[in-house]
Amino acid sequence: MRRTGLDETPAEPAGAMDRRRAVGVAAGLLGGVVLGGGAAGVLAQQTAAAPVAPEDASTIPGLPSGALGIRSPFETPALTPIGVTTGASFSPLQSISGTITPSDLHFQRHHNGIAVIDPRRYSLTIHGLVDRPMVFSLEDLRRFPAVTRTCFIECSGNGRSAYRTPKPTMTAQDVDGLTSNSEWTGVPVATLFNEVGVQRTAKWILAEGGDASRLSRSIPLDKMLDDALIAYAQNGEAVRMPNGYPARLLLPGYEGNMNIKWIRRLKAIDQPNMSKDETSKYTDPLPDGTARQFSFIMDAKSIITSPSYPTQLTSHGWWPVTGLAWTGRGKITRVDVSTDGGRSWTQAELVGPVLPMAHTRFRHMWQWDGTPARLMSRAIDETGYVQPTLETFRRVRGAGTDYHFNSVRTWRVEQDGHVFFEA
Amino acid sequence: MRRTGLDETPAEPAGAMDRRRAVGVAAGLLGGVVLGGGAAGVLAQQTAAAPVAPEDASTIPGLPSGALGIRSPFETPALTPIGVTTGASFSPLQSISGTITPSDLHFQRHHNGIAVIDPRRYSLTIHGLVDRPMVFSLEDLRRFPAVTRTCFIECSGNGRSAYRTPKPTMTAQDVDGLTSNSEWTGVPVATLFNEVGVQRTAKWILAEGGDASRLSRSIPLDKMLDDALIAYAQNGEAVRMPNGYPARLLLPGYEGNMNIKWIRRLKAIDQPNMSKDETSKYTDPLPDGTARQFSFIMDAKSIITSPSYPTQLTSHGWWPVTGLAWTGRGKITRVDVSTDGGRSWTQAELVGPVLPMAHTRFRHMWQWDGTPARLMSRAIDETGYVQPTLETFRRVRGAGTDYHFNSVRTWRVEQDGHVFFEA
Repeated sequence: MRRTGLDETPAEPAGAMDRRRAVGVAAGLLGGVVLGGGAAGVLAQQTAAAPVAPEDASTIPGLPSGALGIRSPFETPALTPIGVTTGASFSPLQSISGTITPSDLHFQRHHNGIAVIDPRRYSLTIHGLVDRPMVFSLEDLRRFPAVTRTCFIECSGNGRSAYRTPKPTMTAQDVDGLTSNSEWTGVPVATLFNEVGVQRTAKWILAEGGDASRLSRSIPLDKMLDDALIAYAQNGEAVRMPNGYPARLLLPGYEGNMNIKWIRRLKAIDQPNMSKDETSKYTDPLPDGTARQFSFIMDAKSIITSPSYPTQLTSHGWWPVTGLAWTGRGKITRVDVSTDGGRSWTQAELVGPVLPMAHTRFRHMWQWDGTPARLMSRAIDETGYVQPTLETFRRVRGAGTDYHFNSVRTWRVEQDGHVFFEA
Repeated sequence: MRRTGLDETPAEPAGAMDRRRAVGVAAGLLGGVVLGGGAAGVLAQQTAAAPVAPEDASTIPGLPSGALGIRSPFETPALTPIGVTTGASFSPLQSISGTITPSDLHFQRHHNGIAVIDPRRYSLTIHGLVDRPMVFSLEDLRRFPAVTRTCFIECSGNGRSAYRTPKPTMTAQDVDGLTSNSEWTGVPVATLFNEVGVQRTAKWILAEGGDASRLSRSIPLDKMLDDALIAYAQNGEAVRMPNGYPARLLLPGYEGNMNIKWIRRLKAIDQPNMSKDETSKYTDPLPDGTARQFSFIMDAKSIITSPSYPTQLTSHGWWPVTGLAWTGRGKITRVDVSTDGGRSWTQAELVGPVLPMAHTRFRHMWQWDGTPARLMSRAIDETGYVQPTLETFRRVRGAGTDYHFNSVRTWRVEQDGHVFFEA
């Protein structure tokens, strides 16, 4: 910030403008491009490499309204898809303030592309060990009492590249962009199970998606009765198409792939189905040659999203060290931040809201003195679980593990203020 | 819902499909249009009048990933702009589930169009009765500790057409679409005032926007110190351009126009500025010829958003009567629903989250017996304030009042299930 440099209180309203602006207004030019006041010119500019704005927007009528509230052309957050129909699209964590992930920036993981489903033909079948097998239309689902809750979904493979092949030029998006946080609305699975009458012999529920991968997973009945939702809305609107439109299973705190998108079938069964997605995939190899299976819950984790690569700190002094923490086991109770590579830790502030199984924003105000630093964060959840160091994680899980990468992240700040990913 | 009609448990996975789907798959045709598996065909379909989907999406590879998560082509929520550069754009309340308003569906009210501002040239000046006048860049603002909170913003003129010229074919969007609810992130004005040293003689703050209307309002200093934010993020992303990019004033609970968009200046003064926007506009004429001025706080209000015009109830039985309630005076503590035009009232359920100065979702499960009905909702807030009936509102405020329309809304359900707006 700077002092105004005004010798006297400026007159209103135009007098408050500084000289630079006044010159711009007089010229009526914006970086060499005349803004005609119409939408066409500016909308065209949005596709150009460098958007332009009036030197002083207060002297030129603005753009007309449209059917949707557009982003500023100066803001171009985007997913980074790896793969086409099978792969993952990483969410730009470094661009996000607060806790909600904008719906179009929610991470994606597809096993055979984005299913296109006509909501009028959509149905959810519940069968197996039930008294009354039933088929529910989308309208049926919407007629039950709905629940609204905010929670994260994280891909169980989130952080794999950062673990196996860390590079200094990885962004927070590259490192851990396969987690997102939304306000979900839908009908509790427990309500639907009450309709169909789940039998006492049922212990597991096979959930199957209606996409071309027919992703299916076995889910403990208790979880389904506890807090599972058939979610049809995300951040106030219909679930976005890549996130499972018109309805997906929501299993707060469970690994992403189990939150079956385009959910079309629930089958009550007495033992796990041993689907390909829980045998050939989504098991966690361990150093001794065995593997963890049914490792459903996402452990406590955190990442500093600012400062992070490619940020350069522009001056010494106070900077907010801020990021996201989350756990599949309830609420985040504490986040510690280190600026010296883990030698000392300070308790960060949890910026509200702090909700169970939800991204929780933390912040530590840090006075940078211009010397190299190593920034780390460590999440602790309400069960007392502490996010492990990289060393501990390596020792317990081994180099070849495939999922549930939740070790402490480190950003290196160089003397010139450049920030790089370390591990 | 319907029974599955399956004589035996279907085999997995393809056997679970019904005959209608299998036929569609065999033909490989989707409403006459071949879906080639590539994005181009389906994206082209999105611009067509009637989108199409595969008969069974599980048999055809889905669409590839993109840079943004798109809406299903079957979902086309939109604002309805009235006016071009001066006017209002109504948010589709009837399309919203849960509590968050998607950022591109946030209502808009412009006084001279949507300002286009380069964030690198943006500045906020704080001057007047302060010890150290200062100019803050956007980067400066982002270096202060941020606050995140969810709250509504409502245009003080929201509901004017419904009051003056009600029509049966008004949607919830037409009636009360000038209110929206977002998670906002920004720096407390109190933090900035601590930097500049507001003097003891200051009682009011003149806030001015950087758009071509230079909208300005006088705000009590106490409010600015209490909970005002300079907000730069909305639902996790940068504030959308029509909502004040790159920064707006946020005054939780205060009428929308005071939440100055594109905020460029705060001036500490000792009495109200008597801007055109608080003298010629935004005062409330009363029946006796006088007018209320500085009626800042939005009173408790609610509207049923479902069922509402143009919905037709398709069968007798249970329907959720659901909508939104909000108050500028804190939390909503109760919403009552009547299905008989106000003769009897039942307490509705408040679906979480229930936050101060935020849209609060309510629901009443209603068993429709097929006879005509009149649906109403009545909000009560933590101060004990009760949303007034239309009759009370008319008596107190008169026919010519211009702002703060918060009387109880009525939807009429006809015998054939059609729903119309009454008043």
